[in-house]
Amino acid sequence: MRHPPQRVKTTGVIEWLDGHDRRLIDDVAAEEPLEIRVAGHVLTITMRTPGDDFELAAGFLHAEGVVNQRDDIARISYGRAPDGSPTGNVVEVALRREGSIDVGAFERHVVAASSCGICGRTSIDAVRARETSPPNPHFRIEATLLTQLPAVLRSAQQVFGRTGGLHAAGLFDANGALVLVREDIGRHNAVDKVIGDALLHGSLPLSERLLLVSGRGGFEIVQKALVAGVPILASVSAPSSLAVQMAREGGLTLIGFLRDRRFVAYSHAGRIAMSG
Amino acid sequence: MRHPPQRVKTTGVIEWLDGHDRRLIDDVAAEEPLEIRVAGHVLTITMRTPGDDFELAAGFLHAEGVVNQRDDIARISYGRAPDGSPTGNVVEVALRREGSIDVGAFERHVVAASSCGICGRTSIDAVRARETSPPNPHFRIEATLLTQLPAVLRSAQQVFGRTGGLHAAGLFDANGALVLVREDIGRHNAVDKVIGDALLHGSLPLSERLLLVSGRGGFEIVQKALVAGVPILASVSAPSSLAVQMAREGGLTLIGFLRDRRFVAYSHAGRIAMSG
Repeated sequence: MRHPPQRVKTTGVIEWLDGHDRRLIDDVAAEEPLEIRVAGHVLTITMRTPGDDFELAAGFLHAEGVVNQRDDIARISYGRAPDGSPTGNVVEVALRREGSIDVGAFERHVVAASSCGICGRTSIDAVRARETSPPNPHFRIEATLLTQLPAVLRSAQQVFGRTGGLHAAGLFDANGALVLVREDIGRHNAVDKVIGDALLHGSLPLSERLLLVSGRGGFEIVQKALVAGVPILASVSAPSSLAVQMAREGGLTLIGFLRDRRFVAYSHAGRIAMSG
Repeated sequence: MRHPPQRVKTTGVIEWLDGHDRRLIDDVAAEEPLEIRVAGHVLTITMRTPGDDFELAAGFLHAEGVVNQRDDIARISYGRAPDGSPTGNVVEVALRREGSIDVGAFERHVVAASSCGICGRTSIDAVRARETSPPNPHFRIEATLLTQLPAVLRSAQQVFGRTGGLHAAGLFDANGALVLVREDIGRHNAVDKVIGDALLHGSLPLSERLLLVSGRGGFEIVQKALVAGVPILASVSAPSSLAVQMAREGGLTLIGFLRDRRFVAYSHAGRIAMSG
């Protein structure tokens, strides 16, 4: 029997506040390695916060183009450690058609892309290798509503409240309702968990959803959003030049600095109803 | 001739503020791939903010155990793109003893660890594979002085002020003087740039320095600090459980939530003079 995932660990610390120090027991976000295996091959090891591991694996494999839909996956299960004991840190994915992926080529070229998106590719051109269709041009959200979403996401973050240490990714509908939130110590993992959940529920592409991330809307997050068919990606922080370029080329609405009553639209701003 | 590194790019955006939108030209932090080659083999491609590329390469190779000191490196230079043209996005490192690294094994097992630290390793045990000596037990800093360092680091961040989008890593001495600061779109890259600079100047180990990072003090940052011999690692944000565990085992003082007049000491708090 596996234990339930331990998302938070407690530890003794010393807090210093304004000249006074005291010992206390504090919560920290759990970080453990997750090994993702396909057809017996280790495709990646990512450092993640335990929980939603099957969704994380599915989302990772989707972002990497290994699976495109629910039916591509025959089974997801926890594996065993090298000594044969059950472990919650190994996930094994069986594909419906094992032959549909050249695992050797994947291992050589895409090893370990999970937490950094670009890692392991052996050509700079591969950065933009994935072809995606422009997402839903009809999805729209009102500007004022948009500015209210970060507070909704934050209040839904269960683990962050205890540790102050987790990134979040949330899916919202056009009315600003939070549909799904996932947390992880890694920005990319939180997004993989959200998109993996959608994949496992057969709800891809996410053509009627806005994706809000707590960290930067970086290049890899833009790529994951495009592959999942998300029309609007919003971030409370700054995007990079490459994120902006990819969002423009891919037809994605990229929003940055979404905080207080302000945001910056970097691409395809037509999906934001500015007045209202 | 190469152009000077372009750390900032400008782009047209729409800013929405409190119900009003306007078009303006905004700065975004540049993000471009850097390919690091050793002995003709591509060891990694990392997304980074251009600038200090030789330091980034040296720091990456140091963190991965490929080089230990300045003399291990015979030459660092910019390489050429596949079409033969000069490019600022490829760095070639020649080792003094090429035979001192099994590039094939490195490619297979450590591909692309730069921006995530753990990526590409094919065994969970490899996470803690690096043996390090406990850092300088005599290095000390006063608590009140410590709380003043984030403001010093922020004011030294040149690119952040224009883009709001860069992480920073800074080295301080025991008197709180800022010795070196480097910025990058990636947290790990900023640390690699700082440690790579120290390596190229022959000033490793950093036994009389505090390392302050603008983001999380995660597991990989703890590992890089330990390999470089840094006695105190401080972060404005939360550490993970694994970061705390590694800092305790390695003899590193780990400080989190360093903001306003407060911080939390997670390990080896003896290096902080609490009264004062």
